[in-house]
Amino acid sequence: MSDHVYKKIELTGSSSIGMQDAIETAVAKASKTINNMRWFEVIETRGHINDGKIEHWQVTIKVGFTLE
Amino acid sequence: MSDHVYKKIELTGSSSIGMQDAIETAVAKASKTINNMRWFEVIETRGHINDGKIEHWQVTIKVGFTLE
Amino acid sequence: MSDHVYKKIELTGSSSIGMQDAIETAVAKASKTINNMRWFEVIETRGHINDGKIEHWQVTIKVGFTLE
Amino acid sequence: MSDHVYKKIELTGSSSIGMQDAIETAVAKASKTINNMRWFEVIETRGHINDGKIEHWQVTIKVGFTLE
Amino acid sequence: MSDHVYKKIELTGSSSIGMQDAIETAVAKASKTINNMRWFEVIETRGHINDGKIEHWQVTIKVGFTLE
Amino acid sequence: MSDHVYKKIELTGSSSIGMQDAIETAVAKASKTINNMRWFEVIETRGHINDGKIEHWQVTIKVGFTLE
Amino acid sequence: MSDHVYKKIELTGSSSIGMQDAIETAVAKASKTINNMRWFEVIETRGHINDGKIEHWQVTIKVGFTLE
Amino acid sequence: MSDHVYKKIELTGSSSIGMQDAIETAVAKASKTINNMRWFEVIETRGHINDGKIEHWQVTIKVGFTLE
Amino acid sequence: MSDHVYKKIELTGSSSIGMQDAIETAVAKASKTINNMRWFEVIETRGHINDGKIEHWQVTIKVGFTLE
Amino acid sequence: MSDHVYKKIELTGSSSIGMQDAIETAVAKASKTINNMRWFEVIETRGHINDGKIEHWQVTIKVGFTLE
Amino acid sequence: MSDHVYKKIELTGSSSIGMQDAIETAVAKASKTINNMRWFEVIETRGHINDGKIEHWQVTIKVGFTLE
Amino acid sequence: MSDHVYKKIELTGSSSIGMQDAIETAVAKASKTINNMRWFEVIETRGHINDGKIEHWQVTIKVGFTLE
Repeated sequence: MSDHVYKKIELTGSSSIGMQDAIETAVAKASKTINNMRWFEVIETRGHINDGKIEHWQVTIKVGFTLE
Repeated sequence: MSDHVYKKIELTGSSSIGMQDAIETAVAKASKTINNMRWFEVIETRGHINDGKIEHWQVTIKVGFTLE
Repeated sequence: MSDHVYKKIELTGSSSIGMQDAIETAVAKASKTINNMRWFEVIETRGHINDGKIEHWQVTIKVGFTLE
Repeated sequence: MSDHVYKKIELTGSSSIGMQDAIETAVAKASKTINNMRWFEVIETRGHINDGKIEHWQVTIKVGFTLE
Repeated sequence: MSDHVYKKIELTGSSSIGMQDAIETAVAKASKTINNMRWFEVIETRGHINDGKIEHWQVTIKVGFTLE
Repeated sequence: MSDHVYKKIELTGSSSIGMQDAIETAVAKASKTINNMRWFEVIETRGHINDGKIEHWQVTIKVGFTLE
Repeated sequence: MSDHVYKKIELTGSSSIGMQDAIETAVAKASKTINNMRWFEVIETRGHINDGKIEHWQVTIKVGFTLE
Repeated sequence: MSDHVYKKIELTGSSSIGMQDAIETAVAKASKTINNMRWFEVIETRGHINDGKIEHWQVTIKVGFTLE
Repeated sequence: MSDHVYKKIELTGSSSIGMQDAIETAVAKASKTINNMRWFEVIETRGHINDGKIEHWQVTIKVGFTLE
Repeated sequence: MSDHVYKKIELTGSSSIGMQDAIETAVAKASKTINNMRWFEVIETRGHINDGKIEHWQVTIKVGFTLE
Repeated sequence: MSDHVYKKIELTGSSSIGMQDAIETAVAKASKTINNMRWFEVIETRGHINDGKIEHWQVTIKVGFTLE
Repeated sequence: MSDHVYKKIELTGSSSIGMQDAIETAVAKASKTINNMRWFEVIETRGHINDGKIEHWQVTIKVGFTLE
């Protein structure tokens, strides 16, 4: 871990299953174009309600990855 | 989505099962008296501990619904 | 202004015109059912974008009114 | 304390006596229409000054009560 | 709105006209390279003063768009 | 821009017209006694409501100016 | 309350008696040089402890007054 | 005050009398096992309500003391 | 619940399974040395990513327990 | 430290050398007109970048001094 | 400074030397791919500890640059 | 890094030299009684001023260490 620089981007994952799945969906999507992801931080948890039920969970995370 | 007005109320759902269930419990309870709920935002997650174990999860959410 | 008690509710006004109109829309709507509104505080300003343009401004305010 | 749902409302109590009296005034007023109040949280303390003296203390609290 | 992932970027729009124009300037600029912008959130409003007058308004927003 | 020191003061402008006018009112007033104002930051937007309408907008800003 | 401008300053009152007295001490002191004080907001409450007892309460407030 | 190191712990004092008594209760309790307490900061004020009256005030403070 | 004093400590639980398991891991670990734990509050949720997947969830909580 | 009242002002020091020098520059400048400065608190650290290098560090502090 | 739009990105610089070096490392790295960087803001300072000593300082900054 | 639990404590280091030395002083002091310290986070930077000069820097950090 010598003098690295990391970039943090902000993603919102959406899932009909739940909070954790929304985060995993965002990380999986980001992994298709970003190598070297190192950590995430949860920023906000929201969701849409339809007909009295939670239709989508939406979790916003920051993801940090090594700049090469 | 013409010029609507939404009201946001703050609810705390309680559950012995977990975070997500506490939120769903709060939304289900609110749906009995409020129509047109549209979204929620998680504000705070707490819980009670008894005899070294988590007895109840308590999640506070804001729920937004259309004023008619 | 003797020992009054005020209640504060949270409203989100929506407007295609702009920020200020969204706030005025929320206050106008609330005035139909609430007397004695005294002040408001802006909490959050958001909006929807469609086709590269701002379609709706959404401003969340707290409104305080005298409990009678 | 089985799986209850609580609602939290925001009140501002006003008092010429002091901070604590402003909170008690708000709780007493709310107790006239709300049963089952369970807890409060202080959000903000402000006041009006007139002629160099504090004329009114204004304390904003959130009050949580059981939804039945 | 199936299980999408959104990215949020932070932009500061500048305008000599006012707050709302600064936001619209930022959204218009971003729309030249980003498709599928869905929402924005106002983060901060600042401005430069010159010779006792407001010369530029600077509004920082977050813009969310669908990752494809 | 060599090693300057700036002072920041907090002002609340009031206007019956709107948010932006309240800010410009505060800056105009301050410019009568302060030279070298350089920037402002919006801290809070509130207002008074009377008879169901917004009577005054009150915007609190910080204003930075060069200490000479 | 036509288009006034208010200035807010930050004061820390100290008192061996308690929180409320620390605030009143700060307001009384400020009233000697500032006319037209209109409101205060409590920002922070701290204190010094000596020999296991609270020796001084220190309450930081913002005080708003009309600029003339 | 040469190069000391202080530790800060977080305590919640409870009192049926009021805010200030809750803080003093927490400090008195801590003084039984901690020497050299130097300052406190109020973090949060809450309370329990029973039968429409405030039954307990609960004030959370941070207490700083010299590490020896 | 007479005039008790509670201490709050901050723990970070780590789990390869998920958010809720990370919290339960922290509470279980703490229960080995602390009696009388009463509640927890979630402060922050983070995690490590390795090879495009979430390897560990890390949830920071505050735990409150009765000082005896 | 009998019942004193302190005033806090907000300053931004600028330095081409670094963070600490920016703070010391602000304190040195303020000491020319203010006696009895007692403490400072760092509020924000920013800076200007020119041609890929940090040209100026700008640190905003609050400075507390005794009102006499 | 006509009606520009700026983008802000979030970087974490790491350094074994100290805070300021961690920031300069992040700015130097970013300058290899970004022209027109204009300012930075410090968001968070953390670090790793190994064998009782600080091994790496990690400072998170936002960097603003002109969108062309 | 299997399912560990970390404890975070809050320390304030004091130094007449500067910010970084205050942090290193706090970590060095803590290392005498705590093994397995893993990371720190800067919470607040303050200082005392005497006779127009900074006499002591005081930096508050959280330190995380592995619970064994």
